[in-house]
Amino acid sequence: MRLTSYFPILDWGRRYNRQTLTSDLIAAIIVTIMLIPQSLAYALLAGLPPETGLYASILPLIAYAVFGTSSALAVGPVAVVSLMTAAAVGNIAAEGSVDYASAAIMLAMLSGVMLTLMGLFKLGFIANFLSHPVISGFITASGIIIATSQVGGLLGIHTEGHAMPDLVMSIADNIGAINGYTTAVGAVALVLLVWIRFDLRNWLNRLGVSKGVATIIVRAGPVMVVFLTMVLSALMDLQGKGVPLVGQVPQGLPMLSLPNLDLSTMQQLAVPALIISIVGFVESISVAQTLAAKRRERIAPNQELIGLGASNIAAAVGGGYPVTGGFARSVVNFDAGAATPAAGAFTAIGIAGATLLLTPFLAILPKATLAATIVVAVLPLVDFSIFRRAWDYSKADFAAIAITFTGTLLLGVETGISLGVGTSILVFFYRSSQPHIAIVGRVPGTEHFRNVQRHQVETVPGILSIRIDESLYFANARYLEDFVASQIAANPSLTDVVLMCSAVNAVDISALESLEAIEHRLKEVGVRLHLSEVKGPVMDKLKQNPFLAELSGEVHLSQHGAICAIRDASKNG
Amino acid sequence: MRLTSYFPILDWGRRYNRQTLTSDLIAAIIVTIMLIPQSLAYALLAGLPPETGLYASILPLIAYAVFGTSSALAVGPVAVVSLMTAAAVGNIAAEGSVDYASAAIMLAMLSGVMLTLMGLFKLGFIANFLSHPVISGFITASGIIIATSQVGGLLGIHTEGHAMPDLVMSIADNIGAINGYTTAVGAVALVLLVWIRFDLRNWLNRLGVSKGVATIIVRAGPVMVVFLTMVLSALMDLQGKGVPLVGQVPQGLPMLSLPNLDLSTMQQLAVPALIISIVGFVESISVAQTLAAKRRERIAPNQELIGLGASNIAAAVGGGYPVTGGFARSVVNFDAGAATPAAGAFTAIGIAGATLLLTPFLAILPKATLAATIVVAVLPLVDFSIFRRAWDYSKADFAAIAITFTGTLLLGVETGISLGVGTSILVFFYRSSQPHIAIVGRVPGTEHFRNVQRHQVETVPGILSIRIDESLYFANARYLEDFVASQIAANPSLTDVVLMCSAVNAVDISALESLEAIEHRLKEVGVRLHLSEVKGPVMDKLKQNPFLAELSGEVHLSQHGAICAIRDASKNG
Repeated sequence: MRLTSYFPILDWGRRYNRQTLTSDLIAAIIVTIMLIPQSLAYALLAGLPPETGLYASILPLIAYAVFGTSSALAVGPVAVVSLMTAAAVGNIAAEGSVDYASAAIMLAMLSGVMLTLMGLFKLGFIANFLSHPVISGFITASGIIIATSQVGGLLGIHTEGHAMPDLVMSIADNIGAINGYTTAVGAVALVLLVWIRFDLRNWLNRLGVSKGVATIIVRAGPVMVVFLTMVLSALMDLQGKGVPLVGQVPQGLPMLSLPNLDLSTMQQLAVPALIISIVGFVESISVAQTLAAKRRERIAPNQELIGLGASNIAAAVGGGYPVTGGFARSVVNFDAGAATPAAGAFTAIGIAGATLLLTPFLAILPKATLAATIVVAVLPLVDFSIFRRAWDYSKADFAAIAITFTGTLLLGVETGISLGVGTSILVFFYRSSQPHIAIVGRVPGTEHFRNVQRHQVETVPGILSIRIDESLYFANARYLEDFVASQIAANPSLTDVVLMCSAVNAVDISALESLEAIEHRLKEVGVRLHLSEVKGPVMDKLKQNPFLAELSGEVHLSQHGAICAIRDASKNG
Repeated sequence: MRLTSYFPILDWGRRYNRQTLTSDLIAAIIVTIMLIPQSLAYALLAGLPPETGLYASILPLIAYAVFGTSSALAVGPVAVVSLMTAAAVGNIAAEGSVDYASAAIMLAMLSGVMLTLMGLFKLGFIANFLSHPVISGFITASGIIIATSQVGGLLGIHTEGHAMPDLVMSIADNIGAINGYTTAVGAVALVLLVWIRFDLRNWLNRLGVSKGVATIIVRAGPVMVVFLTMVLSALMDLQGKGVPLVGQVPQGLPMLSLPNLDLSTMQQLAVPALIISIVGFVESISVAQTLAAKRRERIAPNQELIGLGASNIAAAVGGGYPVTGGFARSVVNFDAGAATPAAGAFTAIGIAGATLLLTPFLAILPKATLAATIVVAVLPLVDFSIFRRAWDYSKADFAAIAITFTGTLLLGVETGISLGVGTSILVFFYRSSQPHIAIVGRVPGTEHFRNVQRHQVETVPGILSIRIDESLYFANARYLEDFVASQIAANPSLTDVVLMCSAVNAVDISALESLEAIEHRLKEVGVRLHLSEVKGPVMDKLKQNPFLAELSGEVHLSQHGAICAIRDASKNG
């Protein structure tokens, strides 16, 4: 029971049969075809040799098949995480150096260990800090940065930087060095890829090609573009004309190895690894949940952390770099019929085969083709609709998006997302630090109490009834103190204050201290403090505490009961 | 109207009369006597020349009298802020250097500007981040650090550091250099001060001294100890025996000046200044509120920020260092009858007089006397009772205290308080990321719906009713998604899901996206989503949004109405 929850493969593996095998194999073939150019391109985006992308598409997929719970999630290199890797590793080593590659491996290892620990200790809630506005603003800005970073690759000029100011400056500086052949290859690849993406299916439909075949042709399109530009490169001797090519790639599978455990590198990469882990997890879990729901399946968020953690540890061991579940590939995997996580393992076998067979030919592939692949892959990430929606819905949510977006574009991925998270937290505490507080009175003829400002209600002189519409905790404890202080200063004839707690779901120790301060100050001026309609769990907590025993007033079951009891006591007293 | 809210002096100044003048003058004399040794001692604690403490007790008090709203708050140097100043400034300059003194002035200026801006923009809510557990753990740890830092002064040895490891190490390293005369002076001063504090009043009572006179004698006790040790120092030539004395102090009032506006110093001091501002404000506002409530007065938190901000700007201009409202002195001020903030202005005049007249004599004062003054002043800060209370009340609150306390002791004031704030925020989000969610059914014979696990209730097959006991926002949006996903995976026969929103006070855009994801996933599997008992303000927000228009189910006024409508529809359909 316990074992299958940590090794979901033991569960679905038992029910594995010829039918699921067939479905998984077909899905694996389609995803493999899609993944080959993407994995090469994303490695380049991460500033790593292209084979690193292939390596990151082998062992991680097998690890996810063992530990993951989503039948459709396609794990591997993705655009945003590749950019984040480049930004993190670029801070501590020069691109192309041995240190750079080993730092990327260390980053995968750290991220893998963090994700696994978060899963084992059920800390998935940490991902909640990335609110929707933050993740949307971040992904859109990342898409723009990634597309801009490929302009150099498309034009054959050198660019650098992982945020817009540096990128734009370096493009402007080197714009004179444009290589016409590179630009031509880039333009052809870009036009073909856009056409394949948006138009090829309709065109095939009109030609009468069946839907299934058309899908396979569309999926294979990007690989065709790779082949086409390789052929062009060979026929026209593009290298001789100054077009940057991928160059020699080591043939064969990666050697297994452990990362170089250098403590100072680990310290420098710890925060980026945490951010990459959380961003990767949030992206992965949302696509996994969406796809699982379509089949009434369920994914286990904490086990997903372990699955992604294992994938990243596998990436580190197998010469790759940080990976996560990719949105577009997962949808393709799902549509192609992937029935179990085994589809991912078969994809890994496909990529391993490609690594063995294709690497000799990759030397002549123009880098511009990969740049075009990236641009087309990231365009769907750029989505401004959330800005409009947030503006209409709530200015505070809009502020979080705008700050994340602007911060990411101008200051880079880590700063941008940190600013966004900080803004979300500030906005949240700002809102809940000023909870709705109403002075209430009785609706005539009922036992029902409502806001005196909105309803015609009856109040009893000398008794003030206050309803707080929020749990009481450190962010708003002082607000209630201020409110009560201003009320007793304004009403010299008060004898009793009743706090109506029907909307108070919790009281933390800061709020308890505030309640004690309120009680203490009221006592000084001869005003009794009462509570009413305190919820069971809150009452359980308060009962353990001397506060209730020392309360000058009573705790009443209902607000109506409170008013009656106070009035009766003052008549008799 | 607006002017008096920013200049409270215009309000109470108009009602000023002979009676309030007398009260204020008496309070001012008592506080002045108390403040002279404390201001000298706290300046030494901050690593500054002793006259800096006097300077920080002149202009800031006058500024507070103009801008402050508390009639009893006694502003000036306090122990915890002095320690924080030493820690912040010690990072960027060597103690005793010109840079050190000018950095302290800059710190006061930054803190003053920050507090004033927070007041003008009504940002007092930022102080809420310092929850009760954090501030309690922090103050107790600071008290221990401060007392330990004075061991060197009491024994005549050199110590350094602003956290326990450094302090204890430096005491251990130098313990061999103890000066017997210094230790004797320190011991005498300490014993006398403790005796004055805890026993003198009883002793005077037994002698038949009237209560009023006894109070004045007790308050004047510390100044007497200063005089006594000065006399001892002169008679016994303590300087010749190696006892460290205060030494030459410039006579006269401070020159007004602006701080040296060095940008890199400002950057380094910005975060410490913010932390000092918030800690100072929290300490000050709680004593001000407690004292104000005793007289049914009211203090305005945002105007208090301006008052403390003006005080710190005045401290910077007048050669002082960061100040705030002190707990012990404010209570003395209140008890002595201070009727308006003018009492503080009179105290400032008293200190100015002392600065002119006393400074020539201070040269022979042993520093050990000041160390003893500090130790006696900070002992009440060390209070472990909150640890026990928090442990009993909530383990999460206890964790926040323990982390703040340990972090402050071992890693210093800034790191300690930052860890504490981080822990509070994490704990809060952890709790609210897993809100109470109940599946509800109808209590037989009523229209009332309760938790199926706690009550005997009726449910309708195919309809799942879920009640969420928390506002929906980014921290728990995904939790609801998980919950609904697991429910639809477990109940294949479901046709309708009703979300009962009676406890949902707000829905942010992250939660809205989650609701849309839930709706979308339910639609995929042919399940309708309904809402019931949505509160007015939440409904206003949702109405602006396409989510409601595209909802597969309906929004029902009551949970009972929802169940009836769904059952009727399925019968008719």
